[in-house]
Amino acid sequence: MVKLQQDRAVRTRETIIKGAAEVFDEYGFNGASISRIMKRAGVSQGAMYFHFKSKEDLARAVMNAQPDTVVPRLDSQGLQRIVDMTFVWAWQIQRDVLLRAGVRLTNEQEGTSVRDASPYQEWAQILEMTLRQAQQEGEVGESVDVRQLAELLVSACTGMQMYANAVSGRQDLPERVVAMWRILLPGVASEGIAESISLDVRRFL
Amino acid sequence: MVKLQQDRAVRTRETIIKGAAEVFDEYGFNGASISRIMKRAGVSQGAMYFHFKSKEDLARAVMNAQPDTVVPRLDSQGLQRIVDMTFVWAWQIQRDVLLRAGVRLTNEQEGTSVRDASPYQEWAQILEMTLRQAQQEGEVGESVDVRQLAELLVSACTGMQMYANAVSGRQDLPERVVAMWRILLPGVASEGIAESISLDVRRFL
Repeated sequence: MVKLQQDRAVRTRETIIKGAAEVFDEYGFNGASISRIMKRAGVSQGAMYFHFKSKEDLARAVMNAQPDTVVPRLDSQGLQRIVDMTFVWAWQIQRDVLLRAGVRLTNEQEGTSVRDASPYQEWAQILEMTLRQAQQEGEVGESVDVRQLAELLVSACTGMQMYANAVSGRQDLPERVVAMWRILLPGVASEGIAESISLDVRRFL
Repeated sequence: MVKLQQDRAVRTRETIIKGAAEVFDEYGFNGASISRIMKRAGVSQGAMYFHFKSKEDLARAVMNAQPDTVVPRLDSQGLQRIVDMTFVWAWQIQRDVLLRAGVRLTNEQEGTSVRDASPYQEWAQILEMTLRQAQQEGEVGESVDVRQLAELLVSACTGMQMYANAVSGRQDLPERVVAMWRILLPGVASEGIAESISLDVRRFL
């Protein structure tokens, strides 16, 4: 019985986050309202306030759900896994409203009451961990500072999706990600490794 | 007489743009109003509408003034000039309200009625031109696609200032730019050139 109630609570929370993502994606943080999110998710005020005390709470939950929309789709290892992470992200941002809303909220923070660096930091940590392992296995050059590379990748991806959004509504984002790797790999991968990395972004279509 | 009137018109336009930059920097596009900008700039409604028909017009002028705040401060050539452009930009964004407002407006477009990819494109063109020359002079590897590198630099800088803004109010932006070049230069500069590039970001302090 307790288990059933817990399951239902988890499902309700997910329903609310999905509704919030749709509304944030469409209206941004400032244009979204809790009442609109409740309507979209089809939940009562009681259910809403049981899970989320404020619009800021909701925005943080949406922002911090980003990795869950990308990481489970990966099965490669090492440096290829890092490349694949950016590839999956470039496609998912075009299809997954939760990822897109999370990215929009993260980037629009300056104009809002939400202040949360953790989406940037969490992405950087995931990338750093994988890069460090790739370096230990000899795929990444010894002189590369993997923490700095991880933060640069997060920054470059953040900026690429904004640039791509301005010029093509994000449609050319996947090819921009490939172009980034063509430029980065020669300086980052160990001798002979760059050639073994697949840059076929379309295999995640 | 006509010359004097023209001079005055140019000065008035600059005064309006500076006032607009201050208001946009503080309130963002949606929070700014023409009347607040008029008040800040100390100009009449007649003068305002002689130069700018709408808030969108003003925002475009502020966004497109970005290179003027960076390029005149450069005197180096070739690949060093590209590096210096990013260094000057990293410091100026902390001091120059016109640059900061231009960057904020460019990045916040998704939530506003302004749609203008030209700030990204103009930066990319300036960088591409200089990179192409550096490549012709043998400083940039022949296999590097300079257009793609230029667009990646614009994207990376865009993302870096947002990441830096979230974690340090942009104070660590200059060191992030140095870290980017440490990672990029080995794959981008021709044999033996990377070592000759100064990465002393503090010389622009």
